[in-house]
Amino acid sequence: MNETVFLNGEYVAKKKAYISPDDRGFYFADGVYEVIRCFKGNFFCFEEHMSRLKRSLSAIRINYKDIDGLSSICHDLIVQNDLEEKYADIYLQITRGVCRRMHSFPESYIPPTIYICAYERLPYVNVLKKGIKAITRPDIRWLRCDIKSVLLLPNTLMFQEAREENASECIFVRDGVITEASHSNVMGVKDGIIFTHPDCNLILPGITKKVIFDICKESGIHVKDRPIIEEEIYKLDELFVTSTGNDIMPVVELNNKRICNGVPGPVTRMIQTEFFRITYKRLGGENTPWF
Amino acid sequence: MNETVFLNGEYVAKKKAYISPDDRGFYFADGVYEVIRCFKGNFFCFEEHMSRLKRSLSAIRINYKDIDGLSSICHDLIVQNDLEEKYADIYLQITRGVCRRMHSFPESYIPPTIYICAYERLPYVNVLKKGIKAITRPDIRWLRCDIKSVLLLPNTLMFQEAREENASECIFVRDGVITEASHSNVMGVKDGIIFTHPDCNLILPGITKKVIFDICKESGIHVKDRPIIEEEIYKLDELFVTSTGNDIMPVVELNNKRICNGVPGPVTRMIQTEFFRITYKRLGGENTPWF
Repeated sequence: MNETVFLNGEYVAKKKAYISPDDRGFYFADGVYEVIRCFKGNFFCFEEHMSRLKRSLSAIRINYKDIDGLSSICHDLIVQNDLEEKYADIYLQITRGVCRRMHSFPESYIPPTIYICAYERLPYVNVLKKGIKAITRPDIRWLRCDIKSVLLLPNTLMFQEAREENASECIFVRDGVITEASHSNVMGVKDGIIFTHPDCNLILPGITKKVIFDICKESGIHVKDRPIIEEEIYKLDELFVTSTGNDIMPVVELNNKRICNGVPGPVTRMIQTEFFRITYKRLGGENTPWF
Repeated sequence: MNETVFLNGEYVAKKKAYISPDDRGFYFADGVYEVIRCFKGNFFCFEEHMSRLKRSLSAIRINYKDIDGLSSICHDLIVQNDLEEKYADIYLQITRGVCRRMHSFPESYIPPTIYICAYERLPYVNVLKKGIKAITRPDIRWLRCDIKSVLLLPNTLMFQEAREENASECIFVRDGVITEASHSNVMGVKDGIIFTHPDCNLILPGITKKVIFDICKESGIHVKDRPIIEEEIYKLDELFVTSTGNDIMPVVELNNKRICNGVPGPVTRMIQTEFFRITYKRLGGENTPWF
């Protein structure tokens, strides 16, 4: 397929999109990113993603003013890649730019590198219905996981370990509590109450998570901003992970032990149904095809 | 200047060296690197750098077999960039390679990306004689700093803070002890004994540090593998940072407080002199021009 991407002001064939080895993203992981869900040309929670992007950029002090211009670029990429009638993801990365390698920021202004691509991605309908296996590993990441930076080597290493154990997510444990997973937030259900790690420097403020909070509020489900204690995890009634990629994904097996008898629990199912109803509605459809 | 670099098997002008945005180094910081000192075409501790590179590659499971071939590439770059009579650095980075973005490793083999460049860098003679200012900051990095990965965003952010306080290094503190600095190991001297953080997951096993250990052994200076306690840092007789870039760099001011009356101490000076004597000798010279 002849994929078109956006790089530094131009729409180019992906094969001709070139990053300099002097890009600080390549040398230092000096950049941030977002992944945005799109259906039939409509973006889900676009404002929220842009708001988080601004926050990430500000946290690592990248000066990029034209956030408002990103929306039309994302739309263009959907059109140029024939994704207007499809489920797609937008991937958007901004690095500090290209400069001779030195740890300190460039002394004079350099334009940030802007890279955006769009590609088809179907929701994992069957997996969402059945749930996934997960493993746990120590959270060895840095202490600013609230910034959506490309500092993702530990995430990839741990996710790979999950894959090799035939699992689909790796849940991180720091100081005896569940922080988040390799690319999702983690939520547990006990006696009808949802537990999840409070937003802080150790986890990403998830956008899907916020939508779930709204759903829970409307549905009268109590959410406690209290992390799941590692020792209590097998005593949970339900466990799920949530992200733009995973949507609301039930975890039915953890470290080869069953959670909730190995099937998605009722609270998880209810949130899934509601989530897809809202998503689909916001994206312009009438009924969700998923549940 | 028309700089020639090495990228994936070819010598190319740096301006024409292109990294794909699909490079896992760009998306995930999924790569490792080394910086090697060179004088008149001779590399300092090349074997040690290659040995550490192998260790880093192995730790993040990048399968690159041709480490032995790197030596001749480095030599070629010195020649092609007219650096045979100069002080130069070699920068060498290996990433997992180019693949559509997904957290897990590519399912089938992809060749790693190999990027190497060479550039002139004089030793910081005057600064080495006078010493530098440094600041301290919390060590917020991940828990595998023993791997020389490109996961360097926290290092760059902290080094930038140092620069803005008119300092030249940022020393990291974790759990009340000094781990290392943004791109150096840290050593303290008290009553003629050298203290430094033991090699473990929290710090890089420094190559310059190992050379210093040898110097100390020969000179009868006792080195204790015990970290400097943050609270005791101003009571030290001497403080210095050490790396391929910093050589043996005295720290004479920390957080705007003087260390050792603001001048490099006798133990630091002795190690510097000996270090440059050895370096210069190994690199083929007769007398060091530095001290």
